[in-house]
Amino acid sequence: MANFSKNQLERYPLYLKYFKELEEEGVEVISSPRIADKFGYSQEQVRKDLQAISESFGKPKCGRPVHQLIQDIESFLGYSRPLVAAVIGVGHLGGALLNYPSFNEMGLSIACGFDTDPNKIGGVIGGKPIFKMDDLKAKFAELGISIAIICVPNTVAQKVVDLSVSCGAKGIWNFAPIQLKVKDGVSLETVNLASSLAVLSHKLGKAKAKENALLQFRSF
Amino acid sequence: MANFSKNQLERYPLYLKYFKELEEEGVEVISSPRIADKFGYSQEQVRKDLQAISESFGKPKCGRPVHQLIQDIESFLGYSRPLVAAVIGVGHLGGALLNYPSFNEMGLSIACGFDTDPNKIGGVIGGKPIFKMDDLKAKFAELGISIAIICVPNTVAQKVVDLSVSCGAKGIWNFAPIQLKVKDGVSLETVNLASSLAVLSHKLGKAKAKENALLQFRSF
Repeated sequence: MANFSKNQLERYPLYLKYFKELEEEGVEVISSPRIADKFGYSQEQVRKDLQAISESFGKPKCGRPVHQLIQDIESFLGYSRPLVAAVIGVGHLGGALLNYPSFNEMGLSIACGFDTDPNKIGGVIGGKPIFKMDDLKAKFAELGISIAIICVPNTVAQKVVDLSVSCGAKGIWNFAPIQLKVKDGVSLETVNLASSLAVLSHKLGKAKAKENALLQFRSF
Repeated sequence: MANFSKNQLERYPLYLKYFKELEEEGVEVISSPRIADKFGYSQEQVRKDLQAISESFGKPKCGRPVHQLIQDIESFLGYSRPLVAAVIGVGHLGGALLNYPSFNEMGLSIACGFDTDPNKIGGVIGGKPIFKMDDLKAKFAELGISIAIICVPNTVAQKVVDLSVSCGAKGIWNFAPIQLKVKDGVSLETVNLASSLAVLSHKLGKAKAKENALLQFRSF
């Protein structure tokens, strides 16, 4: 399998969303310059991204068939075979993920939640049953769950990850703001809000510095 | 201001968390190889990252003072001057963010929420008051809010962003799974769950391909 950078992988769902919008509008072909313009990427990058996953992107100087691009990206991202997941820890954030309406469009199917709180166990959140932690192994097998979505406090996150892996999880999608470890053969991806905030904060600082420089210039 | 890549910016909160753990354990100095080993980064990358923001990282071959590194990263990330934010749209996800315990440690202070639902307006979620959308301009000014956290449905997200910017927001932290636009001078950062899932899904595919290759090898 070819190597894809994290940044590159992150762009495919954005392309997909755009192509689906175009298809709804009745647009049948799209050019790289137009795609590049939409996202503010270079044409070279758009071509490289889409050639890597779509044969219909081989010929330059032609309009690209939108429907084929949609199929190729969905196939590359595995949207035709959704990942089956469980949310572990159904507090505020876990509950929000159980209620999140768009995961099915992103190739993820959440089967259920797990918690230690007797008031939550046996209940239903976002239409999904909540089971006790003791049932992890049985339910992972029964429901074909391969992804554990970690929404527990930092202090127990590594323990819950280890338990999930020992119960058969092949992938960990981590929402706890902590660095976790998994053994070889298990995949880990962390949604790090602190890192996203660091990027926003830095952009704000740059925008402010630019504004101040302009103000100083005007005051001459 | 020097240029920092998105990936580089995203690493600073991870370093910070690690250094704080070390400080709690009573560790006073740390070496680049040990930092590199902890994260699986190259030593060159660790040195480049930390030299860019910390003078105490100038001298090679010395242990680095943990406390100074913490201060330098916090100062670089602006944690001493927290960004003041409002959550716009307090459904499941917005409610989870209002209840999220760790933002204060990440340089973000959430002052309040806004919604259109009369059942939510005037109430309190996660200790924060919920105001009506008509109060946006007055409350942004009164509470010094510069960041709008967008948790509204896709269909109204751009409209809410435009309104927030016209009411004084300088930064948009977007949780709606949609591509948004802001004018020059306003900063936008999107937490894109579809993109994070694409990275996880690709890692899983690679791990599986590797496993299959090993199995084939074994069956010879």
